[in-house]
Amino acid sequence: MNIGLDMMGGDLAPLEVVKGIQLYLQSKFIEANIFCIGDEAIVKPLIEEQLVSSPYLHVVHAPEVIGYHEHPTKALKEKQKSSIAIGFYMLASGKIDAFISAGNTGAMLVGAMYSIKALPGVLRPTVSTIVPKLSGKTGLLLDVGLNADCKPEQLNQFAILGSLYSQHILNIANPKVGLMNVGEEEGKGNILSQATYPLLKDNTAINFIGNVEGRDFFNDKADVMVCDGFTGNIILKMAETLYEVAESRGFGKDAYFNRFHYENYGGSPVLGVAKPVIIGHGISSALAFKNMIDLAEKMLQTDLCGKMKALFETAQN
Amino acid sequence: MNIGLDMMGGDLAPLEVVKGIQLYLQSKFIEANIFCIGDEAIVKPLIEEQLVSSPYLHVVHAPEVIGYHEHPTKALKEKQKSSIAIGFYMLASGKIDAFISAGNTGAMLVGAMYSIKALPGVLRPTVSTIVPKLSGKTGLLLDVGLNADCKPEQLNQFAILGSLYSQHILNIANPKVGLMNVGEEEGKGNILSQATYPLLKDNTAINFIGNVEGRDFFNDKADVMVCDGFTGNIILKMAETLYEVAESRGFGKDAYFNRFHYENYGGSPVLGVAKPVIIGHGISSALAFKNMIDLAEKMLQTDLCGKMKALFETAQN
Repeated sequence: MNIGLDMMGGDLAPLEVVKGIQLYLQSKFIEANIFCIGDEAIVKPLIEEQLVSSPYLHVVHAPEVIGYHEHPTKALKEKQKSSIAIGFYMLASGKIDAFISAGNTGAMLVGAMYSIKALPGVLRPTVSTIVPKLSGKTGLLLDVGLNADCKPEQLNQFAILGSLYSQHILNIANPKVGLMNVGEEEGKGNILSQATYPLLKDNTAINFIGNVEGRDFFNDKADVMVCDGFTGNIILKMAETLYEVAESRGFGKDAYFNRFHYENYGGSPVLGVAKPVIIGHGISSALAFKNMIDLAEKMLQTDLCGKMKALFETAQN
Repeated sequence: MNIGLDMMGGDLAPLEVVKGIQLYLQSKFIEANIFCIGDEAIVKPLIEEQLVSSPYLHVVHAPEVIGYHEHPTKALKEKQKSSIAIGFYMLASGKIDAFISAGNTGAMLVGAMYSIKALPGVLRPTVSTIVPKLSGKTGLLLDVGLNADCKPEQLNQFAILGSLYSQHILNIANPKVGLMNVGEEEGKGNILSQATYPLLKDNTAINFIGNVEGRDFFNDKADVMVCDGFTGNIILKMAETLYEVAESRGFGKDAYFNRFHYENYGGSPVLGVAKPVIIGHGISSALAFKNMIDLAEKMLQTDLCGKMKALFETAQN
């Protein structure tokens, strides 16, 4: 398998990306070729300096960089030699099998949707995040920001995509799907959640257990929590802050609060597209990059995108 | 001033209500007459047993109780001798000036809206919650559940109501108002937040500082955070759980996490109605009831509802 990394994306790039690759290469039996996409003049010396030498490592020259505040579509069109544009070109043409970047999130999403495209039958791809549960288990929340306004049919698809991810990547058999809502009973909620409930209830591809509430975020009521991207993004950013809150109160070393640290969960995969695309946090560190490579590897090993494609193909017929 | 308490509302009622009144009566120079609305045969002996004797204490007989799972409108109509129905009758007729209950939330909201009614010019009343900030300050979040689906004009009014509450009850001069959203820049968000932003920007009755995100919940970026009741309810219930999460990790005694304990913040006031109505948490304890009486007292002392009325009257003309 071939995994591509944007060497120029992230506040701490390219140094932390190189260090992350080093961590990955040292960690285990290597299964993947790593394609380092970035400015050769910067990346090559850095790799040498960090003594990361490996037959699995390949540098792909990309002289341009898409900045954080550039307009995604415009930047992708105008900067065809940028690390993100070249990454998606390589992904679409099969030169790499997965692409990781902690750069411009918008450009990553636009690239994912327009270069490798949504799977047939998928209305809109989605971005998920893992949720550290108090029990030690790992839940999944989606959408966390790609789709601010959603239709019930989209939430129903997120439930399927999230279930497959939970099953194959988080190793949870028959994951319980909950609809993030403001009350337990059917009929509670806003117009969207009221209309979504019956779709989830009738969906035989998932194990729907009903509504969950804000208080269930940390417990094991549901493994997969589904909501629109507006709600999900606010929950995600609140949860991400818990590590800092705990740290400021002197509990930064607590194992549970530590799991909310962005470093430890790596990046957010885009689900519902044909190939693994992982978007990193802007301040991704070496450990975060290492975790994202591990995640890409696991998504490829389990052929998660293929399983998603097959399920949506069946649903269409 | 006369404050009415539903003695029968809440999982721990009536004992904890009586104990809460006792805490209140012991705490300071008493300014309010307390009207204990509930079944005389139960309430009177309990008051005597707890040795709560005071010239400020009056028992009002209400032989019926509205249960947690009863339909609000139906129950209020059919159980006119319930503590909640009698409470609102007394409030509407001026026999009491404020009403507190930890009973059926729906019945409290229906009662607030149909017996004492929304202030002229207020589209929909709202329910807020206080937000413990890491700095030690106290923020306000609204709506937290009364209005699952909102129009931009409603959010704009919540901003005004929340600002007045923050100013007069939380003693924050010129409170900073933020729109809870998924990005910092104007133009970010879902259809609702995109349409709300310009209204808040043009609203001269508030100090609008722009969008806030989930990560700003705990910091001082905004004193008043405005959102629809679906989003707000999920945030509220997540935040309420933080005390339990911290406790389960062994940090239950931490002063900051303790502020998320429902006991310490008491109840949620309904804003935008003509008189103070405070809804308690289902598991309200003595301390929670005491804090709710204090809050009602402060809302009356500052004539908060009068100030809200005046501002909306000005806005109409």
